[in-house]
Amino acid sequence: MTTPHAPPDRSVVERTLGVLGAFDTAHASLTVSQISSRSHIPVATTYRIVSKLVSWGALERAEDNKYTIGLRLWEVSQLAPRHAGLRAAAVPAMFDLRSTTRRAVLLSTRDGTEGICLESVSGNARPLHRSWSRGHRFPLHATACGRVLLAAADTTVQDELYGGDLRRYTERTVHAPAVLRDLVAHTRRQGYAVSDGELLNGVVEIAAPIHGGDGAVLGAIGLITVGTASTAVPDAVGPLLAAARRVSRSLSDLPAAPGDAVPSPRTARSRTPRPQGACA
Amino acid sequence: MTTPHAPPDRSVVERTLGVLGAFDTAHASLTVSQISSRSHIPVATTYRIVSKLVSWGALERAEDNKYTIGLRLWEVSQLAPRHAGLRAAAVPAMFDLRSTTRRAVLLSTRDGTEGICLESVSGNARPLHRSWSRGHRFPLHATACGRVLLAAADTTVQDELYGGDLRRYTERTVHAPAVLRDLVAHTRRQGYAVSDGELLNGVVEIAAPIHGGDGAVLGAIGLITVGTASTAVPDAVGPLLAAARRVSRSLSDLPAAPGDAVPSPRTARSRTPRPQGACA
Repeated sequence: MTTPHAPPDRSVVERTLGVLGAFDTAHASLTVSQISSRSHIPVATTYRIVSKLVSWGALERAEDNKYTIGLRLWEVSQLAPRHAGLRAAAVPAMFDLRSTTRRAVLLSTRDGTEGICLESVSGNARPLHRSWSRGHRFPLHATACGRVLLAAADTTVQDELYGGDLRRYTERTVHAPAVLRDLVAHTRRQGYAVSDGELLNGVVEIAAPIHGGDGAVLGAIGLITVGTASTAVPDAVGPLLAAARRVSRSLSDLPAAPGDAVPSPRTARSRTPRPQGACA
Repeated sequence: MTTPHAPPDRSVVERTLGVLGAFDTAHASLTVSQISSRSHIPVATTYRIVSKLVSWGALERAEDNKYTIGLRLWEVSQLAPRHAGLRAAAVPAMFDLRSTTRRAVLLSTRDGTEGICLESVSGNARPLHRSWSRGHRFPLHATACGRVLLAAADTTVQDELYGGDLRRYTERTVHAPAVLRDLVAHTRRQGYAVSDGELLNGVVEIAAPIHGGDGAVLGAIGLITVGTASTAVPDAVGPLLAAARRVSRSLSDLPAAPGDAVPSPRTARSRTPRPQGACA
Protein backbone atom coordinates (compact mmCIF):
# COMPACT_ATOMS: atom_id res chain seq x y z
CA MET A 1 0.00 0.00 0.00
CA THR A 2 1.40 3.37 -0.93
CA THR A 3 1.09 6.47 1.20
CA PRO A 4 0.36 9.31 -1.17
CA HIS A 5 1.29 12.82 -0.09
CA ALA A 6 -1.30 14.98 -1.81
CA PRO A 7 -0.90 18.71 -1.52
CA PRO A 8 -4.09 19.27 0.55
CA ASP A 9 -5.37 22.18 -1.52
CA ARG A 10 -5.46 20.46 -4.89
CA SER A 11 -8.86 20.85 -6.50
CA VAL A 12 -10.82 18.03 -8.14
CA VAL A 13 -9.91 19.47 -11.57
CA GLU A 14 -6.22 19.31 -10.66
CA ARG A 15 -6.59 15.78 -9.31
CA THR A 16 -8.36 14.69 -12.51
CA LEU A 17 -5.46 16.09 -14.52
CA GLY A 18 -3.08 14.45 -12.03
CA VAL A 19 -4.60 11.06 -12.90
CA LEU A 20 -4.03 11.67 -16.62
CA GLY A 21 -0.52 12.98 -15.91
CA ALA A 22 0.39 9.70 -14.16
CA PHE A 23 0.62 8.09 -17.62
CA ASP A 24 3.76 8.43 -19.69
CA THR A 25 5.67 6.33 -22.23
CA ALA A 26 7.25 4.20 -19.52
CA HIS A 27 3.91 3.93 -17.69
CA ALA A 28 1.28 3.58 -20.42
CA SER A 29 -0.72 0.98 -18.47
CA LEU A 30 -1.33 1.41 -14.73
CA THR A 31 -3.43 -0.03 -11.90
CA VAL A 32 -5.47 2.29 -9.67
CA SER A 33 -2.90 1.92 -6.91
CA GLN A 34 -0.05 2.77 -9.29
CA ILE A 35 -1.95 5.84 -10.50
CA SER A 36 -2.58 6.81 -6.87
CA SER A 37 1.06 6.44 -6.01
CA ARG A 38 2.35 8.31 -9.07
CA SER A 39 -0.14 11.17 -8.78
CA HIS A 40 -0.09 11.45 -4.95
CA ILE A 41 -3.87 11.14 -4.78
CA PRO A 42 -5.48 8.84 -2.15
CA VAL A 43 -6.56 5.45 -3.57
CA ALA A 44 -10.30 5.96 -2.91
CA THR A 45 -10.29 9.34 -4.68
CA THR A 46 -8.21 7.92 -7.52
CA TYR A 47 -10.68 5.07 -7.94
CA ARG A 48 -13.63 7.49 -8.10
CA ILE A 49 -11.89 9.70 -10.69
CA VAL A 50 -10.74 6.72 -12.78
CA SER A 51 -14.31 5.34 -12.95
CA LYS A 52 -15.59 8.63 -14.33
CA LEU A 53 -12.71 8.91 -16.80
CA VAL A 54 -13.54 5.37 -18.01
CA SER A 55 -17.26 6.21 -18.44
CA TRP A 56 -16.34 9.17 -20.63
CA GLY A 57 -13.67 7.32 -22.63
CA ALA A 58 -10.63 9.26 -21.41
CA LEU A 59 -9.29 6.00 -19.94
CA GLU A 60 -9.93 2.41 -20.98
CA ARG A 61 -9.82 -0.73 -18.86
CA ALA A 62 -7.12 -3.16 -19.98
CA GLU A 63 -6.11 -6.61 -18.68
CA ASP A 64 -4.84 -7.29 -15.14
CA ASN A 65 -6.89 -4.47 -13.56
CA LYS A 66 -4.85 -1.94 -15.48
CA TYR A 67 -5.99 1.21 -17.24
CA THR A 68 -4.71 2.94 -20.36
CA ILE A 69 -5.41 6.24 -22.12
CA GLY A 70 -8.67 5.94 -24.08
CA LEU A 71 -9.57 6.51 -27.68
CA ARG A 72 -11.92 9.41 -26.93
CA LEU A 73 -9.14 11.45 -25.32
CA TRP A 74 -7.01 10.74 -28.39
CA GLU A 75 -9.89 11.91 -30.59
CA VAL A 76 -10.30 15.23 -28.73
CA SER A 77 -6.55 15.80 -28.69
CA GLN A 78 -6.38 15.64 -32.48
CA LEU A 79 -7.88 19.13 -32.38
CA ALA A 80 -4.72 20.64 -30.79
CA PRO A 81 -3.91 23.33 -33.37
CA ARG A 82 -0.17 23.47 -32.69
CA HIS A 83 -0.09 19.82 -33.67
CA ALA A 84 -2.81 19.59 -36.29
CA GLY A 85 -2.01 22.70 -38.34
CA LEU A 86 1.72 22.13 -38.67
CA ARG A 87 1.24 18.43 -39.28
CA ALA A 88 -1.32 18.92 -42.05
CA ALA A 89 1.01 21.33 -43.82
CA ALA A 90 4.15 19.23 -43.31
CA VAL A 91 3.14 15.61 -43.84
CA PRO A 92 3.08 15.54 -47.69
CA ALA A 93 6.59 17.07 -47.78
CA MET A 94 7.77 14.63 -45.09
CA PHE A 95 6.59 11.63 -47.14
CA ASP A 96 8.32 12.93 -50.25
CA LEU A 97 11.53 13.68 -48.34
CA ARG A 98 11.50 10.15 -46.94
CA SER A 99 10.95 8.70 -50.43
CA THR A 100 13.78 10.79 -51.94
CA THR A 101 16.33 10.24 -49.20
CA ARG A 102 15.11 6.89 -47.73
CA ARG A 103 15.96 8.42 -44.36
CA ALA A 104 13.89 9.03 -41.25
CA VAL A 105 12.11 12.39 -41.18
CA LEU A 106 10.65 14.21 -38.21
CA LEU A 107 8.57 17.26 -37.43
CA SER A 108 8.97 19.09 -34.15
CA THR A 109 8.10 22.24 -32.26
CA ARG A 110 9.26 23.92 -29.06
CA ASP A 111 7.38 23.75 -25.76
CA GLY A 112 9.20 25.95 -23.24
CA THR A 113 12.81 24.81 -22.97
CA GLU A 114 12.15 21.42 -24.61
CA GLY A 115 11.46 20.19 -28.10
CA ILE A 116 8.51 17.92 -28.80
CA CYS A 117 8.24 15.52 -31.71
CA LEU A 118 4.91 16.08 -33.52
CA GLU A 119 5.36 13.47 -36.23
CA SER A 120 8.00 11.08 -37.46
CA VAL A 121 8.47 8.67 -40.31
CA SER A 122 10.96 5.83 -40.04
CA GLY A 123 13.58 5.56 -42.74
CA ASN A 124 13.95 2.72 -45.17
CA ALA A 125 14.68 -0.05 -42.73
CA ARG A 126 15.47 0.40 -39.08
CA PRO A 127 12.86 1.93 -36.76
CA LEU A 128 13.51 5.30 -35.25
CA HIS A 129 14.97 5.56 -31.76
CA ARG A 130 12.22 6.38 -29.30
CA SER A 131 13.65 9.90 -28.78
CA TRP A 132 12.14 10.65 -32.17
CA SER A 133 8.74 9.04 -31.73
CA ARG A 134 5.57 11.12 -31.73
CA GLY A 135 4.88 12.88 -28.47
CA HIS A 136 8.40 12.46 -27.14
CA ARG A 137 10.32 15.39 -25.77
CA PHE A 138 13.95 16.03 -26.63
CA PRO A 139 16.66 18.40 -25.35
CA LEU A 140 17.09 21.57 -27.40
CA HIS A 141 20.86 21.87 -26.87
CA ALA A 142 21.85 18.38 -28.09
CA THR A 143 19.74 18.12 -31.25
CA ALA A 144 19.62 19.81 -34.65
CA CYS A 145 15.84 20.39 -34.45
CA GLY A 146 16.43 21.81 -30.98
CA ARG A 147 19.07 24.29 -32.12
CA VAL A 148 16.88 25.42 -35.02
CA LEU A 149 14.02 26.05 -32.57
CA LEU A 150 16.40 27.71 -30.09
CA ALA A 151 17.74 30.03 -32.80
CA ALA A 152 14.22 31.41 -33.14
CA ALA A 153 13.39 31.56 -29.42
CA ASP A 154 13.51 34.82 -27.52
CA THR A 155 16.48 35.54 -25.25
CA THR A 156 14.57 34.67 -22.05
CA VAL A 157 14.20 31.06 -23.26
CA GLN A 158 17.82 30.92 -24.41
CA ASP A 159 19.13 32.34 -21.11
CA GLU A 160 16.99 29.91 -19.10
CA LEU A 161 18.33 27.00 -21.13
CA TYR A 162 21.99 28.02 -20.98
CA GLY A 163 21.69 28.54 -17.23
CA GLY A 164 20.17 25.08 -16.69
CA ASP A 165 21.39 21.50 -16.85
CA LEU A 166 23.05 20.96 -20.25
CA ARG A 167 23.34 17.20 -20.01
CA ARG A 168 26.04 15.38 -21.97
CA TYR A 169 24.31 12.53 -23.80
CA THR A 170 27.46 11.43 -25.63
CA GLU A 171 31.08 12.55 -25.66
CA ARG A 172 30.22 14.85 -28.55
CA THR A 173 27.31 16.71 -26.87
CA VAL A 174 28.03 20.42 -26.91
CA HIS A 175 27.34 21.58 -23.37
CA ALA A 176 29.33 24.75 -22.79
CA PRO A 177 26.93 27.72 -22.87
CA ALA A 178 29.36 29.95 -24.79
CA VAL A 179 29.92 27.34 -27.51
CA LEU A 180 26.18 26.71 -27.74
CA ARG A 181 25.47 30.43 -28.14
CA ASP A 182 27.90 30.54 -31.06
CA LEU A 183 26.41 27.41 -32.63
CA VAL A 184 22.88 28.79 -32.32
CA ALA A 185 23.95 32.09 -33.91
CA HIS A 186 25.63 30.10 -36.70
CA THR A 187 22.42 28.09 -37.20
CA ARG A 188 20.47 31.32 -37.59
CA ARG A 189 22.88 32.59 -40.30
CA GLN A 190 23.28 29.24 -42.08
CA GLY A 191 19.56 28.34 -42.12
CA TYR A 192 20.03 24.79 -40.84
CA ALA A 193 21.65 22.88 -37.96
CA VAL A 194 23.59 19.64 -37.66
CA SER A 195 23.91 17.37 -34.61
CA ASP A 196 26.71 14.86 -35.22
CA GLY A 197 26.28 12.08 -32.66
CA GLU A 198 25.37 14.51 -29.88
CA LEU A 199 22.22 12.75 -28.66
CA LEU A 200 23.01 9.19 -29.83
CA ASN A 201 26.39 7.90 -30.90
CA GLY A 202 26.71 7.49 -34.65
CA VAL A 203 23.40 9.23 -35.44
CA VAL A 204 23.48 12.41 -37.52
CA GLU A 205 20.53 14.80 -37.51
CA ILE A 206 20.10 17.75 -39.86
CA ALA A 207 17.25 20.22 -39.34
CA ALA A 208 15.77 23.33 -40.94
CA PRO A 209 13.15 25.82 -39.73
CA ILE A 210 9.52 26.03 -40.87
CA HIS A 211 8.24 29.59 -41.08
CA GLY A 212 4.65 30.81 -40.85
CA GLY A 213 3.17 33.58 -42.97
CA ASP A 214 4.54 36.28 -40.66
CA GLY A 215 8.07 34.83 -40.81
CA ALA A 216 7.94 33.37 -37.30
CA VAL A 217 9.50 29.93 -36.84
CA LEU A 218 6.64 27.51 -36.07
CA GLY A 219 8.62 24.28 -36.07
CA ALA A 220 11.57 22.36 -37.42
CA ILE A 221 11.82 19.53 -39.92
CA GLY A 222 14.66 17.08 -39.35
CA LEU A 223 16.33 14.27 -41.25
CA ILE A 224 18.06 11.48 -39.37
CA THR A 225 20.70 9.10 -40.60
CA VAL A 226 23.57 6.95 -39.39
CA GLY A 227 27.17 7.71 -40.27
CA THR A 228 29.13 10.92 -39.97
CA ALA A 229 28.12 14.47 -40.75
CA SER A 230 30.85 14.87 -43.39
CA THR A 231 29.28 12.22 -45.60
CA ALA A 232 25.59 12.62 -44.67
CA VAL A 233 25.13 16.39 -44.77
CA PRO A 234 26.16 17.23 -48.37
CA ASP A 235 23.57 14.83 -49.86
CA ALA A 236 20.79 15.60 -47.44
CA VAL A 237 20.84 19.34 -46.95
CA GLY A 238 19.45 20.28 -50.38
CA PRO A 239 16.31 18.08 -50.22
CA LEU A 240 15.79 19.04 -46.57
CA LEU A 241 15.88 22.79 -47.23
CA ALA A 242 13.57 22.34 -50.23
CA ALA A 243 11.08 20.43 -48.06
CA ALA A 244 11.24 23.11 -45.33
CA ARG A 245 10.61 25.85 -47.91
CA ARG A 246 7.68 23.91 -49.36
CA VAL A 247 6.02 23.56 -45.95
CA SER A 248 6.69 27.24 -45.10
CA ARG A 249 5.19 28.30 -48.42
CA SER A 250 2.03 26.28 -47.85
CA LEU A 251 1.70 27.88 -44.39
CA SER A 252 2.31 31.40 -45.72
CA ASP A 253 -0.39 31.01 -48.37
CA LEU A 254 -2.81 31.27 -45.49
CA PRO A 255 -4.38 34.58 -44.53
CA ALA A 256 -1.97 36.25 -42.11
CA ALA A 257 -4.24 36.76 -39.11
CA PRO A 258 -1.92 38.17 -36.43
CA GLY A 259 -1.15 35.58 -33.80
CA ASP A 260 -3.08 32.91 -35.69
CA ALA A 261 0.18 31.52 -36.99
CA VAL A 262 -0.82 27.86 -37.03
CA PRO A 263 -3.81 27.31 -39.29
CA SER A 264 -6.54 24.78 -38.79
CA PRO A 265 -5.88 21.59 -40.75
CA ARG A 266 -8.88 22.08 -42.97
CA THR A 267 -7.86 25.63 -43.90
CA ALA A 268 -4.26 24.58 -44.45
CA ARG A 269 -5.27 21.79 -46.75
CA SER A 270 -7.74 23.70 -48.83
CA ARG A 271 -5.32 26.60 -49.36
CA THR A 272 -2.22 24.56 -50.06
CA PRO A 273 -1.47 24.69 -53.77
CA ARG A 274 -1.96 21.22 -55.25
CA PRO A 275 -0.53 20.43 -58.68
CA GLN A 276 -2.32 17.76 -60.73
CA GLY A 277 -5.39 15.87 -59.42
CA ALA A 278 -5.31 12.12 -59.03
CA CYS A 279 -7.24 10.73 -56.11
CA ALA A 280 -9.51 11.73 -53.30
CA MET B 1 -25.84 35.32 -22.53
CA THR B 2 -26.60 31.63 -22.57
CA THR B 3 -28.66 29.85 -19.97
CA PRO B 4 -26.93 26.56 -19.37
CA HIS B 5 -29.01 23.67 -18.10
CA ALA B 6 -26.54 21.60 -16.14
CA PRO B 7 -27.79 18.32 -14.77
CA PRO B 8 -27.53 19.26 -11.07
CA ASP B 9 -25.72 16.10 -10.01
CA ARG B 10 -22.76 16.29 -12.40
CA SER B 11 -19.51 15.99 -10.50
CA VAL B 12 -16.48 18.23 -11.01
CA VAL B 13 -14.75 15.38 -12.87
CA GLU B 14 -17.70 15.13 -15.25
CA ARG B 15 -17.78 18.89 -15.71
CA THR B 16 -14.04 18.92 -16.46
CA LEU B 17 -14.62 16.28 -19.13
CA GLY B 18 -17.65 18.26 -20.31
CA VAL B 19 -15.36 21.23 -20.98
CA LEU B 20 -13.03 19.06 -23.08
CA GLY B 21 -16.01 17.48 -24.84
CA ALA B 22 -17.23 20.92 -25.95
CA PHE B 23 -14.45 20.89 -28.57
CA ASP B 24 -14.90 19.11 -31.88
CA THR B 25 -13.74 19.57 -35.47
CA ALA B 26 -16.35 22.22 -36.15
CA HIS B 27 -15.60 23.89 -32.78
CA ALA B 28 -11.83 23.64 -32.35
CA SER B 29 -11.52 27.14 -30.90
CA LEU B 30 -14.06 28.42 -28.33
CA THR B 31 -14.59 31.27 -25.88
CA VAL B 32 -15.48 30.54 -22.26
CA SER B 33 -19.08 31.48 -22.92
CA GLN B 34 -19.24 29.18 -25.95
CA ILE B 35 -17.76 26.32 -23.89
CA SER B 36 -20.31 27.06 -21.15
CA SER B 37 -23.17 27.01 -23.61
CA ARG B 38 -22.03 23.84 -25.40
CA SER B 39 -21.29 21.92 -22.19
CA HIS B 40 -24.25 23.22 -20.15
CA ILE B 41 -21.95 24.34 -17.33
CA PRO B 42 -22.46 27.78 -15.73
CA VAL B 43 -20.03 30.43 -17.02
CA ALA B 44 -18.30 31.01 -13.66
CA THR B 45 -17.65 27.28 -13.19
CA THR B 46 -16.52 26.95 -16.80
CA TYR B 47 -14.09 29.83 -16.32
CA ARG B 48 -12.62 28.22 -13.19
CA ILE B 49 -12.19 24.83 -14.91
CA VAL B 50 -10.74 26.39 -18.07
CA SER B 51 -8.10 28.28 -16.03
CA LYS B 52 -6.92 25.04 -14.44
CA LEU B 53 -6.90 23.20 -17.76
CA VAL B 54 -4.76 26.02 -19.20
CA SER B 55 -2.28 25.87 -16.28
CA TRP B 56 -1.79 22.15 -16.88
CA GLY B 57 -1.59 22.45 -20.69
CA ALA B 58 -4.80 20.59 -21.55
CA LEU B 59 -6.09 23.81 -23.14
CA GLU B 60 -4.17 26.73 -24.65
CA ARG B 61 -5.21 30.35 -24.93
CA ALA B 62 -5.58 31.52 -28.54
CA GLU B 63 -6.50 34.91 -30.03
CA ASP B 64 -9.82 36.71 -29.44
CA ASN B 65 -10.29 35.24 -25.93
CA LYS B 66 -10.63 31.80 -27.45
CA TYR B 67 -9.21 28.51 -26.20
CA THR B 68 -8.00 25.44 -28.06
CA ILE B 69 -6.90 21.92 -27.08
CA GLY B 70 -3.33 22.08 -25.76
CA LEU B 71 -0.16 20.28 -26.69
CA ARG B 72 0.14 18.48 -23.34
CA LEU B 73 -3.21 16.75 -23.78
CA TRP B 74 -2.08 15.71 -27.25
CA GLU B 75 1.14 14.36 -25.73
CA VAL B 76 -0.68 12.22 -23.12
CA SER B 77 -3.16 10.99 -25.72
CA GLN B 78 -0.36 9.55 -27.84
CA LEU B 79 -0.23 6.77 -25.23
CA ALA B 80 -3.70 5.45 -26.19
CA PRO B 81 -2.81 1.84 -27.03
CA ARG B 82 -5.69 1.24 -29.44
CA HIS B 83 -4.26 4.08 -31.50
CA ALA B 84 -0.53 3.78 -30.85
CA GLY B 85 -0.10 0.02 -31.23
CA LEU B 86 -2.07 -0.37 -34.45
CA ARG B 87 -0.56 2.77 -35.90
CA ALA B 88 3.03 1.75 -35.19
CA ALA B 89 2.45 -1.60 -36.87
CA ALA B 90 0.54 -0.17 -39.83
CA VAL B 91 2.30 3.04 -40.81
CA PRO B 92 5.25 1.56 -42.75
CA ALA B 93 2.86 -0.55 -44.83
CA MET B 94 0.58 2.47 -45.34
CA PHE B 95 3.47 4.55 -46.72
CA ASP B 96 4.48 1.77 -49.09
CA LEU B 97 0.90 1.23 -50.24
CA ARG B 98 0.56 4.93 -50.93
CA SER B 99 3.86 4.91 -52.89
CA THR B 100 2.82 1.88 -54.96
CA THR B 101 -0.74 2.96 -55.70
CA ARG B 102 -0.41 6.78 -55.39
CA ARG B 103 -3.79 6.59 -53.69
CA ALA B 104 -4.99 7.74 -50.29
CA VAL B 105 -4.62 5.15 -47.54
CA LEU B 106 -6.33 5.05 -44.18
CA LEU B 107 -6.26 3.06 -40.97
CA SER B 108 -9.36 2.69 -38.84
CA THR B 109 -10.89 0.84 -35.94
CA ARG B 110 -14.39 0.42 -34.49
CA ASP B 111 -15.68 2.27 -31.46
CA GLY B 112 -19.15 0.98 -30.64
CA THR B 113 -21.37 1.37 -33.70
CA GLU B 114 -19.03 3.85 -35.41
CA GLY B 115 -15.71 3.67 -37.19
CA ILE B 116 -12.88 6.01 -36.24
CA CYS B 117 -10.03 7.01 -38.51
CA LEU B 118 -6.71 6.46 -36.69
CA GLU B 119 -4.40 7.58 -39.47
CA SER B 120 -4.64 8.69 -43.06
CA VAL B 121 -2.26 9.56 -45.86
CA SER B 122 -3.42 11.70 -48.77
CA GLY B 123 -2.97 10.31 -52.25
CA ASN B 124 -0.77 11.79 -54.90
CA ALA B 125 -2.48 15.08 -55.37
CA ARG B 126 -5.83 16.00 -53.91
CA PRO B 127 -6.28 16.13 -50.13
CA LEU B 128 -8.54 13.61 -48.47
CA HIS B 129 -12.13 14.52 -47.71
CA ARG B 130 -12.46 15.33 -44.02
CA SER B 131 -14.46 12.14 -43.40
CA TRP B 132 -11.12 10.39 -43.69
CA SER B 133 -8.99 12.69 -41.54
CA ARG B 134 -7.46 11.48 -38.29
CA GLY B 135 -9.87 11.38 -35.38
CA HIS B 136 -12.98 11.58 -37.55
CA ARG B 137 -15.79 9.11 -37.09
CA PHE B 138 -17.52 7.47 -40.02
CA PRO B 139 -20.66 5.33 -40.45
CA LEU B 140 -20.03 1.58 -40.53
CA HIS B 141 -22.82 0.78 -42.99
CA ALA B 142 -21.79 3.17 -45.79
CA THR B 143 -18.03 2.55 -45.91
CA ALA B 144 -15.75 -0.33 -46.88
CA CYS B 145 -13.67 0.01 -43.67
CA GLY B 146 -16.93 0.05 -41.75
CA ARG B 147 -18.24 -3.15 -43.33
CA VAL B 148 -14.90 -4.91 -42.69
CA LEU B 149 -15.12 -3.89 -39.03
CA LEU B 150 -18.79 -4.84 -38.88
CA ALA B 151 -18.05 -8.29 -40.33
CA ALA B 152 -15.90 -8.93 -37.27
CA ALA B 153 -18.22 -7.38 -34.69
CA ASP B 154 -20.41 -9.53 -32.49
CA THR B 155 -24.11 -9.86 -33.28
CA THR B 156 -25.17 -7.39 -30.56
CA VAL B 157 -23.29 -4.60 -32.36
CA GLN B 158 -24.65 -5.68 -35.74
CA ASP B 159 -28.23 -5.86 -34.48
CA GLU B 160 -27.93 -2.44 -32.82
CA LEU B 161 -26.63 -0.95 -36.04
CA TYR B 162 -29.22 -2.55 -38.36
CA GLY B 163 -32.00 -1.43 -36.00
CA GLY B 164 -30.75 2.19 -35.96
CA ASP B 165 -30.67 5.07 -38.42
CA LEU B 166 -29.01 3.84 -41.63
CA ARG B 167 -28.59 7.22 -43.27
CA ARG B 168 -28.43 7.51 -47.05
CA TYR B 169 -25.38 9.63 -47.84
CA THR B 170 -25.73 9.22 -51.60
CA GLU B 171 -28.17 7.50 -53.92
CA ARG B 172 -25.92 4.44 -53.79
CA THR B 173 -25.78 4.05 -50.00
CA VAL B 174 -26.94 0.58 -49.02
CA HIS B 175 -29.43 1.16 -46.21
CA ALA B 176 -31.75 -1.85 -46.15
CA PRO B 177 -30.81 -4.04 -43.14
CA ALA B 178 -31.31 -7.31 -45.06
CA VAL B 179 -29.06 -6.18 -47.94
CA LEU B 180 -26.43 -4.97 -45.48
CA ARG B 181 -26.46 -8.30 -43.64
CA ASP B 182 -25.77 -10.07 -46.93
CA LEU B 183 -23.03 -7.62 -47.88
CA VAL B 184 -21.35 -8.02 -44.49
CA ALA B 185 -21.49 -11.82 -44.78
CA HIS B 186 -20.02 -11.52 -48.28
CA THR B 187 -17.22 -9.28 -46.92
CA ARG B 188 -16.39 -11.92 -44.32
CA ARG B 189 -16.08 -14.65 -47.00
CA GLN B 190 -14.31 -12.47 -49.59
CA GLY B 191 -11.79 -10.93 -47.16
CA TYR B 192 -12.33 -7.34 -48.31
CA ALA B 193 -15.11 -4.81 -48.84
CA VAL B 194 -15.87 -2.19 -51.48
CA SER B 195 -17.91 1.00 -51.10
CA ASP B 196 -18.68 2.43 -54.52
CA GLY B 197 -19.78 6.02 -54.04
CA GLU B 198 -21.83 5.18 -50.95
CA LEU B 199 -20.43 7.88 -48.65
CA LEU B 200 -19.33 10.40 -51.29
CA ASN B 201 -20.34 10.44 -54.92
CA GLY B 202 -17.61 9.20 -57.23
CA VAL B 203 -15.33 8.01 -54.44
CA VAL B 204 -14.45 4.31 -54.27
CA GLU B 205 -13.11 2.79 -51.05
CA ILE B 206 -11.66 -0.70 -50.72
CA ALA B 207 -10.80 -2.11 -47.29
CA ALA B 208 -9.31 -5.23 -45.72
CA PRO B 209 -9.11 -6.43 -42.11
CA ILE B 210 -6.03 -6.33 -39.87
CA HIS B 211 -5.77 -9.34 -37.55
CA GLY B 212 -3.97 -9.59 -34.22
CA GLY B 213 -2.01 -12.61 -33.05
CA ASP B 214 -5.18 -14.35 -31.80
CA GLY B 215 -6.93 -13.84 -35.15
CA ALA B 216 -9.23 -11.10 -33.85
CA VAL B 217 -9.84 -8.17 -36.20
CA LEU B 218 -8.16 -5.11 -34.64
CA GLY B 219 -8.75 -2.64 -37.45
CA ALA B 220 -9.15 -2.08 -41.16
CA ILE B 221 -6.85 -0.62 -43.77
CA GLY B 222 -8.54 1.21 -46.63
CA LEU B 223 -7.56 2.59 -50.00
CA ILE B 224 -9.50 5.49 -51.48
CA THR B 225 -9.70 6.57 -55.08
CA VAL B 226 -11.96 8.38 -57.50
CA GLY B 227 -13.69 6.64 -60.38
CA THR B 228 -15.76 3.51 -60.39
CA ALA B 229 -15.28 0.23 -58.59
CA SER B 230 -15.06 -1.75 -61.84
CA THR B 231 -11.84 0.04 -62.85
CA ALA B 232 -10.37 0.79 -59.42
CA VAL B 233 -10.79 -2.52 -57.61
CA PRO B 234 -8.87 -4.93 -59.87
CA ASP B 235 -5.65 -2.87 -59.65
CA ALA B 236 -5.92 -2.02 -55.99
CA VAL B 237 -7.08 -5.16 -54.25
CA GLY B 238 -3.81 -7.10 -54.57
CA PRO B 239 -1.54 -4.45 -53.03
CA LEU B 240 -4.18 -3.70 -50.36
CA LEU B 241 -4.50 -7.34 -49.26
CA ALA B 242 -0.70 -7.68 -49.21
CA ALA B 243 -0.42 -4.59 -47.00
CA ALA B 244 -3.12 -5.91 -44.63
CA ARG B 245 -1.33 -9.27 -44.36
CA ARG B 246 1.99 -7.52 -43.67
CA VAL B 247 0.49 -5.49 -40.82
CA SER B 248 -1.30 -8.55 -39.40
CA ARG B 249 1.94 -10.52 -39.52
CA SER B 250 3.87 -7.86 -37.65
CA LEU B 251 1.13 -7.80 -35.00
CA SER B 252 1.07 -11.59 -34.70
CA ASP B 253 4.83 -11.74 -34.16
CA LEU B 254 4.08 -10.30 -30.75
CA PRO B 255 3.65 -12.54 -27.74
CA ALA B 256 -0.01 -13.51 -27.60
CA ALA B 257 -0.92 -12.31 -24.12
CA PRO B 258 -4.67 -12.98 -23.92
CA GLY B 259 -6.64 -9.77 -24.32
CA ASP B 260 -3.46 -7.78 -24.89
CA ALA B 261 -4.18 -7.77 -28.60
CA VAL B 262 -2.80 -4.32 -29.35
CA PRO B 263 0.89 -4.14 -28.49
CA SER B 264 2.72 -1.11 -27.18
CA PRO B 265 4.38 0.82 -30.00
CA ARG B 266 7.84 0.10 -28.68
CA THR B 267 7.24 -3.64 -28.50
CA ALA B 268 5.59 -3.66 -31.90
CA ARG B 269 8.55 -1.90 -33.45
CA SER B 270 11.25 -3.98 -31.85
CA ARG B 271 9.54 -7.26 -32.78
CA THR B 272 8.56 -6.35 -36.32
CA PRO B 273 10.90 -8.16 -38.72
CA ARG B 274 13.05 -5.59 -40.46
CA PRO B 275 14.94 -6.59 -43.59
CA GLN B 276 18.14 -4.71 -44.40
CA GLY B 277 19.45 -1.84 -42.22
CA ALA B 278 19.84 1.65 -43.64
CA CYS B 279 19.14 4.49 -41.28
CA ALA B 280 18.24 5.26 -37.71
